[in-house]
Formats: sequence, C-alpha cells, structure tokens
Amino acid sequence: MAAVRIDSTVMDRLAEITGRDNLDTTHRGRWNAVGGASYLDYVRQRAGDCSGVPDAVIAPARHDEVQAVIEECSRVGVPIVPQGGGTSVVGGLRCDRPHIAISTSRMHAVLDIDDVAGLVRVESGITGPILEAILAPRGLTLGHLPQSWQRASIGGYLATRSAGQASTGYGRSDDMVESLLVATPAGPLSAGHIPSSAAGPDLLQLVIGSEGAFGVITEASLRVRRLPAASRYEAWIFPDFDAGREAFRELAQSRITADVMRLSDAQETATSLLMSAPGGLMGAALTAYLRRRGVTSGEGALTILGWEAVDSDMVKSRRGAAVEVLRRHGAVLLGKRPGESWQRHRFDGPHLRDALMDAGYLVETVETSTTWSNLARLRTAIHHALDHSLTSSVTRPYVMTHISHVYETGASLYTTVIAVADQTDPVGQWTAAKAAVSDAISSGGGTITHHHAIGRDHARWLPDEIGALGVATLNAVKSSLDPAGICNPGVLGLT
Amino acid sequence: MAAVRIDSTVMDRLAEITGRDNLDTTHRGRWNAVGGASYLDYVRQRAGDCSGVPDAVIAPARHDEVQAVIEECSRVGVPIVPQGGGTSVVGGLRCDRPHIAISTSRMHAVLDIDDVAGLVRVESGITGPILEAILAPRGLTLGHLPQSWQRASIGGYLATRSAGQASTGYGRSDDMVESLLVATPAGPLSAGHIPSSAAGPDLLQLVIGSEGAFGVITEASLRVRRLPAASRYEAWIFPDFDAGREAFRELAQSRITADVMRLSDAQETATSLLMSAPGGLMGAALTAYLRRRGVTSGEGALTILGWEAVDSDMVKSRRGAAVEVLRRHGAVLLGKRPGESWQRHRFDGPHLRDALMDAGYLVETVETSTTWSNLARLRTAIHHALDHSLTSSVTRPYVMTHISHVYETGASLYTTVIAVADQTDPVGQWTAAKAAVSDAISSGGGTITHHHAIGRDHARWLPDEIGALGVATLNAVKSSLDPAGICNPGVLGLT
Repeated sequence: MAAVRIDSTVMDRLAEITGRDNLDTTHRGRWNAVGGASYLDYVRQRAGDCSGVPDAVIAPARHDEVQAVIEECSRVGVPIVPQGGGTSVVGGLRCDRPHIAISTSRMHAVLDIDDVAGLVRVESGITGPILEAILAPRGLTLGHLPQSWQRASIGGYLATRSAGQASTGYGRSDDMVESLLVATPAGPLSAGHIPSSAAGPDLLQLVIGSEGAFGVITEASLRVRRLPAASRYEAWIFPDFDAGREAFRELAQSRITADVMRLSDAQETATSLLMSAPGGLMGAALTAYLRRRGVTSGEGALTILGWEAVDSDMVKSRRGAAVEVLRRHGAVLLGKRPGESWQRHRFDGPHLRDALMDAGYLVETVETSTTWSNLARLRTAIHHALDHSLTSSVTRPYVMTHISHVYETGASLYTTVIAVADQTDPVGQWTAAKAAVSDAISSGGGTITHHHAIGRDHARWLPDEIGALGVATLNAVKSSLDPAGICNPGVLGLT
Repeated sequence: MAAVRIDSTVMDRLAEITGRDNLDTTHRGRWNAVGGASYLDYVRQRAGDCSGVPDAVIAPARHDEVQAVIEECSRVGVPIVPQGGGTSVVGGLRCDRPHIAISTSRMHAVLDIDDVAGLVRVESGITGPILEAILAPRGLTLGHLPQSWQRASIGGYLATRSAGQASTGYGRSDDMVESLLVATPAGPLSAGHIPSSAAGPDLLQLVIGSEGAFGVITEASLRVRRLPAASRYEAWIFPDFDAGREAFRELAQSRITADVMRLSDAQETATSLLMSAPGGLMGAALTAYLRRRGVTSGEGALTILGWEAVDSDMVKSRRGAAVEVLRRHGAVLLGKRPGESWQRHRFDGPHLRDALMDAGYLVETVETSTTWSNLARLRTAIHHALDHSLTSSVTRPYVMTHISHVYETGASLYTTVIAVADQTDPVGQWTAAKAAVSDAISSGGGTITHHHAIGRDHARWLPDEIGALGVATLNAVKSSLDPAGICNPGVLGLT
C-alpha cells in the first residue's frame, strides 16, 4: 500500500478537529475503507489490489466536526470521500486521487423522535438494524430494507437514492426523508420541507442521490410508520412472466399493491425452486399440481407477496382485493412457506455470491426500470446483451430477472448473471459485459440505475439519460457548493 | 398604458419566428396578459393600474418556436414571462421591467397517449377541462383539480408545484409528472425519469416549482389513471376541530385516506352551514340532532370526504375502513347532500370574492403546511396575526381555516380572511397584513406556501425557508440555464 500522500500539516489540523484517535492512517484502517461490494470490488479485494485506497480515515463525532473537516480539506484542496457502510456496488467509494475518507461510523445518534408526526431525526451514520432496534420499543419502524441493510448507513441510503425490498409499500428512501443536513465546502446546507411545500424547486431532491459530490449528509429527518402488528408473506406462481407482469400492472394501477412484490421470470423461478429444500417445491406432486392448474413446468413465474399492516383485518382486506386480480391472471397459490422462507433468507444473496466466486464464477447484478409498455422488450434486450457478451466457446451465462418494485407507470427489472469467470482477466471480462448491457439499457428506454446509483461505474451513461444540459446543471450546483472540487470527485462523472 | 418599450428590430425578429399574427402589441392583448388572480391583482385591475403589463404577447405554436423566442430574447437581453392561464395568486406574472409575455395558448396538443403505462404527453398550454375531455372517452383521467382548474394550464400547474382538491388521492402536480421539456436560454432541457430512478439528483424536481425562472415548460408527460366508475362524496361533522384533526392524522398514518379530505374549523363550519339553502343544515332539527350526538352548535367541525374508484366495491371497502376511524373520533354523518353540494360548487370561490369586493370587503386566502404536532399551534398563530393586523377601531376581520391536503407527517392549512376594505389604501392594508401573517407562518414552523408558489409576493420569506445557501444554489442553476437573467426576473427572489 502506498504511503500517506497528504501533507502532515494538513493531517495535524484535521487531527485537531476530531482528536488524533479518530484519524486512522494504519494500513488496516485504510484498507477497510476502500471500494464497495460490487463483483469488481470483490475481485480486486481478493487480488489485494490497493487502488483507490484512502490516505486516511477520519471519523468526526457530529455535524460540526464534519463541517470543519470539509472546510479544511476544501481550503487545501484535498479530496474527501464519504464513508458509511461501504456497500456501494457502483464504484461510489473508489477515488484514485489522494484523499481522506470521512467515516460516519461515530455518528449514530437518534436526535429526536416526534411520535405525533411520525418523524425521527438521526445522524447519518446510523444503520438500519440499530435504528429499527431503537424504534421498535416505541412501536415504530422505518421499513427500509435494501439488500445491504445489515451494513449500510442512512446517509448512504439517501446519498444513493436507494430502494428497499418493501419499497412498494414503504416508499423509496427518497420518499421517506423529510429533510437533510449536508456539510458542504460552502457551509451547512439544510434542505427539505415538512411535510409538503410549493416553495420553489425541491432542493431536497437535488441533494438526494448526489453521492457525496456536493458534501456529506450528516443528519436526516425520516418519516416512520407504526410497526405492523400483522403480516402475511406468501408465494404464488403465474403461468408465465407476461401474465404476472400484467397482474402486477393491474395491482399497481388499481392501487392495491402489497408492500413487498416480487415476480421472477422462468429462469429465476427454476433456480429458486431448485434451491429449495429437497422434497420441497420441485417434487413431482407439485409439478402435477401446477399442471392441473395450467402452469407448465419451466414457464411458471414465481411471485412473492408480502402485506404488513397495523392489524390482521387490514392485511386480510388488502390481500383480498389483490387475490381477485392474481387469480384472474391465472396465478396459483403456493402458500405461506415459500414466502416466509424468502423473508428469512432475503439478505443472503451476498454470502451466496462469495461461495460462487470461490468456485470460479462471475456473479453480478444489473438493474433498471422502465414503463409497463416497454418492460418485456427491455428485459429481452438485457438478456441478449449479457448472453452475447459472456458466451465463450465453452459455456453460456445463466441470466435471470425479477421485478421487485412496481409503480403506476412501470416497474424495475433486476437481473442476475452467473458465468464462468475468466481467470486471466476477470476485470476485463465483466467491464466489457457491463458496457454492453448498459448500452442495451440506455438505448432500450431504461434508466441506467433504478436503485444502485451512478457512482463512477455508471457515469458514462448519465449524459445519455439527463442530457448535456442536465450535466451542466449538476456542474453548476457543484461549482457553487464545492468550488474546489474536493467532494468525492468522479462520482456522477463530475470533477 | 405605456408604449411598447422594446426595440422594433427585436420585435421584427420575434415576429419572424411565430408569424406577425401571433405577436400581439395591442392595449387589449397586453392588458389581458398582466397580473393574476390575487386580491391585490383584482384591486389593481379594478383601479386600471397598468403596472407590470407586458410590452407584447407572443404565442408560439410549439416547443421549437418557444426555444427560438427565448434564445433571441436572451441574446438581446429582453426579459420574458411565461403566460398560461394567468391565475397566479403570488405575483408570479407581474414583472416591472419591459418584457415579452410568452403565451402557451396555442400549445394545447395531446402528443401521445400510452394506455398501458398510463402516460399522456401534452403541450404545456393545455388546460384541465380540455385534457379531461380528451381523456374521458378513453376511460382515463388526470384528476388534478386546483381551484383555478377552469383556466389554469398544465405548464402553470408544474411551474408552481400546484396541488388540487383531490391531491390526497391523486397526488400533487409534482407527483403526477414523469418528465418535462423546458425551453431555456441555454437550450432545451429534458428532465425526468420514467418511472423511477436512482440516476443522481432529481432534476425534474428542480425544474418543477421554478416558476419560469429557468425557462418555459413546453411539454410534459403526465401519469393518468382510470376514470373512476364509482364515487361517493359526503359530509360529516366532528365535535370540534381537534377531534377532526386527530381523525385525519389517523387516516393518513394508517393509509386509509379518502381522495378528497377537507376539515373546516368552527368558524368555517358556521359560515358553510349559514350559506346553505334556507331550511337546510342550520335548521333547529339539525342543531338538536347534533346536540344529541355530542356536537355543540358553534364548535362543530364540518368535513367533506370523497372517494373515487374503479368500482363501487372498492369505494365501499375504502370508505368502510375510514368510517370506523371517523366514528371513534366522534364524527356524525350529515349525509351525501352537503358533500355533493360542495363538489358542485367547488370552483365558485373566486366568483364569490368578486361579489364581496363589490360590497366593500377585502377577501384573501393564505395557506401553508406543517407537521401534525405543530398544526394547532400554527393555525392559532395565523388567526392571531390576521386578527391583529386587520382589526380597526370599528370592525374585526372574519378568519376561518380548513385542512384540505393530508400527508403521513402533517397537513395543509388554508385560511380565508374577510375584512372591511380600507378604501383609501387597500393595497397598503393587505400588504401589511400579508407581511404579518407570513412572518407568523415562517417563524411558526410552516412553509411559506403549500400550493400557491413563491412568485414575487413570497420571495422575501424564501431565504428563511431554504437558507442563504439554498438561494445561492438556485442562483447557480439560474446562472447556468439563464446566463442573461431574462427568465421571469424577480420570481423566487432571483434576478
């Protein structure tokens, strides 16, 4: 690992702000703060690749200290990268210039709870599990469950505009935040109107998704809900993906959505059923059962639906309205067991990836959203691009997709690809495939990211999506809030 | 009226873009384009006050012509003011510098309807009634019903971040737009992601509410819904405003809201009942009926609830869940007649104001939103400020308030004030009262506007709400998109 490249007088001044104990320049501390959780991050970590490692990790105790650190770094022109849970999958934390990582690990206080309004103000370093543990005894929940939930910070949710597994019911991170405090080089920026306002452009939605390019989110006021006293998770199977998609569209457009709604294509359905316990779903009895109800083995589309509510009557009435739609589109109930099994194992994906990588596989995901009218076409384009770019003379990739977030006008697509890793150049192999599939998404009417953010990995495709003038607008905001260009340079393609 | 103050060579070039017929410099055309629909606008119009009148009104036929007009005006430094329905109540259209009004009156085409996604792309000059008339035969509706519905344009909705009477059910204008095209001096800006995205800061929400300060909205893609086949409007009365407020909070936080939800305080309730037909609601029989059910005359809080859905079962089940909450908070059903009467007369307010002004009264409204926990306190502060500033030696003002938009974390407050007009200085009288009540709102934890926008009248209070750095951020965006500062100078306090 390279030596610390930042002037010692700067380091001394930073240490004065936070105390020397909270400025870590050890190899271990710096190594732990690099990268993120993408396939390429894992490949690089396994190879001991130190590129992008910060020169130091500073851990301020509160907003004022973050503000002082940023102003000092701006004065001397030293880049900073915010560090929450470290779970970016888009290169949001990998900065090639000498830089300081500002860790929010010491900022995990709940500052205020307003039970009447249902608002909780927190420091940005708090994680989902800790916040939920504090809220639960008061009968409250945030209900935001990204796959990175066990590690990600609230500040990270908001900086990346994340969505969670229950976002169809609880809203995306950008729906559940009412106001933010951001430490920027130009001073503290407070953004957000409670609960709704027509006071000009919405600066809150300008700061959300800014990925540290304008500064570091230090505090957030979040809308919380009453902890559900009743819930029901269950699985159904549709004759095929198209039937399920049409049912999901009707549920969304009739506003009788469940809180969790997932629909797997035939490929993912086959995998899910295969991975169930022996003697489980794939038994001959099940196949016969489904065939009698019009679902042909190999075409069926598994769906997981979860309702949560303050009482079981409400779960029952919401479910009742949905079931009528499900049956009309040919769905067959598989029961609660597979739904509850999904709920139990829903954070296991990353661990499974480790095991597959150990066995020599490339495993990665891509995601997007588009309108209902374009959804089937875009899914096909994504599968083709991955098939084409990852097929070798010997093997073809396994590609599978699900819908996990529905809106009135469209839905997300989340695609997992598994291929035999190119052992000589795993980085080059995925970089080429990623470019191909991103081109397919961008030219196929999808957003380059529905909930993973832009980071550095998607920056190439952002101008296609928001136009040159959109990029110029972001640059104008950045120049105003971060005139020295020190805030996470490179994310969003801004420097 | 002053002569046209803009150079004739500029006028000739503008006429080349749109044709001479679409560049109006007549007194009548210019007079019709000034001002808006606030009390002060009406006072000035009645006095024949020409201040703020445009030097010409140009009516381009489509986006490209608007773009060309704006670029020409930017080149020569002539300010422009977008002109939709002309219903601003915050001085959004009153520009004291020589300027051109860009009317969107010729831009009323529906460009595309996507029935599957539920999206309709329109030119920005289309009004609600015309759009609804085009959508209805296809079984679709936008469902946006601001009080200015009969005249306001879609572009105006979005430029001012408007809310409608059914926004609790259908969403505010900022919820129902998926993308926008804006003609700016720096070029066409296309903003918006369909249907949801994590691709960086949300530029769509930066353009919504920009009130023409960055350019002219020319096209919009809007989310539409299936036309409701069933609806039910009805009135209830709560023992008092606090009981109704708590019921509304529970409905919002349990997510069993009606599509229209209005709750009047005792003052507004008394007025509504008094204004009903003779022998109607205020009869002795009603008073006795209510007293038996615990509602004391003079304290009761009238509520209007409206449900709309694709079938009557859905109306029934949504209403059923709400009724349980209403009754638990002491509400008594008044029946469908007053609900349907409200629905029939809901656009009559402005006409009533004309009659009251003829009779020598000041009539104006102020509006805000705040959290549930702050709502009662803020309502009291608003009433005190208006009482104090409009009480003369002879009379006191009549002040009454309702909630008309509810959110999980809070609600709007909409206050109407009627006072004897100061015939010698009506402008000074309201200007002082408006300042007092705006100070009370701003220091009392409310937003300076929940759905009327900032314009010029609220610009003084915007820095309190978004901070100096927020204003600097808006200025940075404006400098980038409108470097010559020609776009509606003065709105949002930007120049």
